[in-house]
Amino acid sequence: MQGFGVHTSMWTMNWDRAGAEKAIAGAAHYKMDFIEIALLNAPAVDAAHTRALLEKNGLRAVCSLGLPEAAWASVRPDAAIEHLKQAIEKTAEMGAEALSGVIYGGIGERTGVPPTQGEYDNITRVLSEAASHAKRFGIELGVEAVNRYENHLVNSAQQAVDVVERVGADNVFVHLDTYHMNIEEKGAANGILVAREHLKYIHLSESDRGTPGYGNVPWDEIYATLAAIGFKGGLAMESFINMPPEVAYGLAVWRPVARDMEEVMGNGLPFLRNKAAQYGLI
Amino acid sequence: MQGFGVHTSMWTMNWDRAGAEKAIAGAAHYKMDFIEIALLNAPAVDAAHTRALLEKNGLRAVCSLGLPEAAWASVRPDAAIEHLKQAIEKTAEMGAEALSGVIYGGIGERTGVPPTQGEYDNITRVLSEAASHAKRFGIELGVEAVNRYENHLVNSAQQAVDVVERVGADNVFVHLDTYHMNIEEKGAANGILVAREHLKYIHLSESDRGTPGYGNVPWDEIYATLAAIGFKGGLAMESFINMPPEVAYGLAVWRPVARDMEEVMGNGLPFLRNKAAQYGLI
Amino acid sequence: MQGFGVHTSMWTMNWDRAGAEKAIAGAAHYKMDFIEIALLNAPAVDAAHTRALLEKNGLRAVCSLGLPEAAWASVRPDAAIEHLKQAIEKTAEMGAEALSGVIYGGIGERTGVPPTQGEYDNITRVLSEAASHAKRFGIELGVEAVNRYENHLVNSAQQAVDVVERVGADNVFVHLDTYHMNIEEKGAANGILVAREHLKYIHLSESDRGTPGYGNVPWDEIYATLAAIGFKGGLAMESFINMPPEVAYGLAVWRPVARDMEEVMGNGLPFLRNKAAQYGLI
Amino acid sequence: MQGFGVHTSMWTMNWDRAGAEKAIAGAAHYKMDFIEIALLNAPAVDAAHTRALLEKNGLRAVCSLGLPEAAWASVRPDAAIEHLKQAIEKTAEMGAEALSGVIYGGIGERTGVPPTQGEYDNITRVLSEAASHAKRFGIELGVEAVNRYENHLVNSAQQAVDVVERVGADNVFVHLDTYHMNIEEKGAANGILVAREHLKYIHLSESDRGTPGYGNVPWDEIYATLAAIGFKGGLAMESFINMPPEVAYGLAVWRPVARDMEEVMGNGLPFLRNKAAQYGLI
Repeated sequence: MQGFGVHTSMWTMNWDRAGAEKAIAGAAHYKMDFIEIALLNAPAVDAAHTRALLEKNGLRAVCSLGLPEAAWASVRPDAAIEHLKQAIEKTAEMGAEALSGVIYGGIGERTGVPPTQGEYDNITRVLSEAASHAKRFGIELGVEAVNRYENHLVNSAQQAVDVVERVGADNVFVHLDTYHMNIEEKGAANGILVAREHLKYIHLSESDRGTPGYGNVPWDEIYATLAAIGFKGGLAMESFINMPPEVAYGLAVWRPVARDMEEVMGNGLPFLRNKAAQYGLI
Repeated sequence: MQGFGVHTSMWTMNWDRAGAEKAIAGAAHYKMDFIEIALLNAPAVDAAHTRALLEKNGLRAVCSLGLPEAAWASVRPDAAIEHLKQAIEKTAEMGAEALSGVIYGGIGERTGVPPTQGEYDNITRVLSEAASHAKRFGIELGVEAVNRYENHLVNSAQQAVDVVERVGADNVFVHLDTYHMNIEEKGAANGILVAREHLKYIHLSESDRGTPGYGNVPWDEIYATLAAIGFKGGLAMESFINMPPEVAYGLAVWRPVARDMEEVMGNGLPFLRNKAAQYGLI
Repeated sequence: MQGFGVHTSMWTMNWDRAGAEKAIAGAAHYKMDFIEIALLNAPAVDAAHTRALLEKNGLRAVCSLGLPEAAWASVRPDAAIEHLKQAIEKTAEMGAEALSGVIYGGIGERTGVPPTQGEYDNITRVLSEAASHAKRFGIELGVEAVNRYENHLVNSAQQAVDVVERVGADNVFVHLDTYHMNIEEKGAANGILVAREHLKYIHLSESDRGTPGYGNVPWDEIYATLAAIGFKGGLAMESFINMPPEVAYGLAVWRPVARDMEEVMGNGLPFLRNKAAQYGLI
Repeated sequence: MQGFGVHTSMWTMNWDRAGAEKAIAGAAHYKMDFIEIALLNAPAVDAAHTRALLEKNGLRAVCSLGLPEAAWASVRPDAAIEHLKQAIEKTAEMGAEALSGVIYGGIGERTGVPPTQGEYDNITRVLSEAASHAKRFGIELGVEAVNRYENHLVNSAQQAVDVVERVGADNVFVHLDTYHMNIEEKGAANGILVAREHLKYIHLSESDRGTPGYGNVPWDEIYATLAAIGFKGGLAMESFINMPPEVAYGLAVWRPVARDMEEVMGNGLPFLRNKAAQYGLI
């Protein structure tokens, strides 16, 4: 998890052989350091095939997921542990370095009331067991803070730090996302400040999840703060222009948020990379 | 709808006699030009009592609401028309000038798929009838764009303009909110540009709905664009620090977004007013 | 003066035949709508040669200058009138549309005390006579506000408006510059608001006069306000990377402000154009 | 040099007994941690009187200056050394902690050409001798980067770092100023990143040197970066509303940059302090 990467959603959300080939070729074409693979259905992934493609193209990888409702950590901790163990093993088989995202719950999970201690206790137990399992496979686990609408449990960087510190395993880190921080943090950079010790991965996503540089994220502030804390983790561009309906549901993407892929890859990507280079981050 | 006002949520979300007295006294104390009254339960409001308080304190008023699920315009247009007619009449009885907000649906209404033409047709019919009714009472109607998570029908200023133009009544206007624009617009000021002809009301709300000036809204950009289009409508500060659980649910407010009321009224309010004065808006 | 152009400083500050050929070919290569020609030595310009090149390449042109010390309008009004008349005639001969810049004084002119009424009276007389002369040739005159260090007479947009209104000729307009506005205006967009009726030309220049998009100018705020006032004038990119020493002196450019021309034209120019298109300005 | 202070220009630029009494009383009234004393004429200062006032009011102090032309370090190094030694001794006598500012040259010093190695060699020698002298008195020396118009030698944070590292004394630090950084740095926070190891003092000054919060400085970006580097030095508000003509000349302040002192102290000061507290800097 170093350098500049991209979420596979630019090419596919379906990680079968065809999807993997398309996405890895695309990421290699744009000279990415790594690719973030959405592990929506781990058992269906042909790990050896992905591993071979990654090696052939000199790409590193990070996997990400949100838990399905049947395995939400807050309410079904045992199912969550099983789900994460499978995903961790698949992650390792693919040769990826980490499993990150909403690994503590569902995208769209909301009880309608503030989080309870019981929910956090369950999450802590789930992530502790998952971290032990991951450790055996050399995998790191990331806890991503998402906005109040996508989950009620970990919205702010502070909450992500609290979860990570409660788990207390050295292979569990904080994962932030500029789109969510734009909604949740007091000063977009504040999340970076709060999470500094634990931050290893950040999604670079515009305020509407469209083309980076066309929205409201204060990129200079984000990059300056990353540089100031000495950030050495992964920078992953994320833009949701190819969402299948079942994924769009959880993310509430109802309209095209960018003109097309060319706008994102031709304008947004160079914009993010130029600024990252300006701040010495890549 | 001119000048600088505040949403009653600063004092109460319960517009009974006690709530009205507390909120109107508070708004008068802070020398507001108007107050925005959340009309969550119109039949229960003692309109004559509110009208007398407003007159005594020299305050104008705007009412706002989201439709209850039983009266969502997109799926139950006749119920929506009835609900809006009652609210319009109550608005007029209180001596308020407009009824605005998510008057086309529910806060939290989402089908999980993009909006359909059938939904917009129903909304258009509902708002057309409501506009005629409102006209008889001298009331204006505002269509508020809210973010993708709170409703799937009108997220961007362009969508609000489309609805208003389809209705085509001269007493229906666009209502924007900086909190939602920060998520939905490409450039926070872009919503103001798009809606310019129709814009009569704007919520000044911070990016986390907390203390204005402590978050990510680019206030200079917002105010400069308002000044540039010659905006003459109402500026209403909104901060959600006193949410009863049933309202917090739709708004997904799970944690305190400001330290306390003193921070909002003592720091946030002067900040917003100073900047509004700097740009000649008040 | 419409569309998107560039200052010739990208290619040369020496408008002889070789300079004209290099700059016009360059501007055409980058598909500019117009070019801004620095008229530092009007008598030496081969106007017919420039006119032919402009026509052949389908480029429009604007000329600009600062007055030499022997012809500062505030203290030597008659010399200033003569200087401007010559420049106006040369501008017309080249087929350019306007003469703009610090046409009221010198770049580097400072008395060490605030401007006096006598200085402004002289300027008004000079610009009035120049405007009459320009009118006969179909030329417009622009008054550029520059920062406090480059001149003490017209630093803010308000001061430029005051000068233009005192002159009161319909072919005299306000010319702003984002670099100077970043120093002088309260809110970068404020100059645009103040000058709105009179604004016909704007320099798009980064906060350090280097590569646009790499500095501190709030471009979204600038563009949103231009869009909001319905700006129809010329947008001219300006970056000072090829300054001969005698020009660098007045501008106080002591170090390279951009890596090289490729950074400005390859990154800065697309950045400015993408944003201008996003806001519907080109 | 810790905490939040203010430049005495808010009250006086004349550090005689009356000026000292007025300024120290003012700073104490606003509960400042320290005051920055402009040491324009060291021999005339009654050091014992100032020291007693500071102690009585529990205020710490920093002195600052620009060298007079007769003692510019780049061209008259011996005179510069003498001037600095006197100022250092006066600083110590007053009980102040540091002498900072344009201690390497004049405010307004410009040769018209880029800095030469000879100039830097002279500066290095001057500051090395001054540092040794200061060390004996327990005084630290700050090198302030100022914009290209006020001096041609040290405009960027990188140049200040270069000077400090050439001198190589442990009591010489970098002093930045948001007003100058807004002009010189690529990304306002970039200067903080570059100077991080050496940065001990920062002027918080608005983009027009007027009321903080009313201009273009991106305060969140500045504060976030200071917090991210773990800044522990002094934060000094600076606004130039009371400039005697001879000082205004070097600073090129030709018009009032704030409405009045009440605007600066009543709006600008709380704005800066609130944000500094939000970022945990005070």
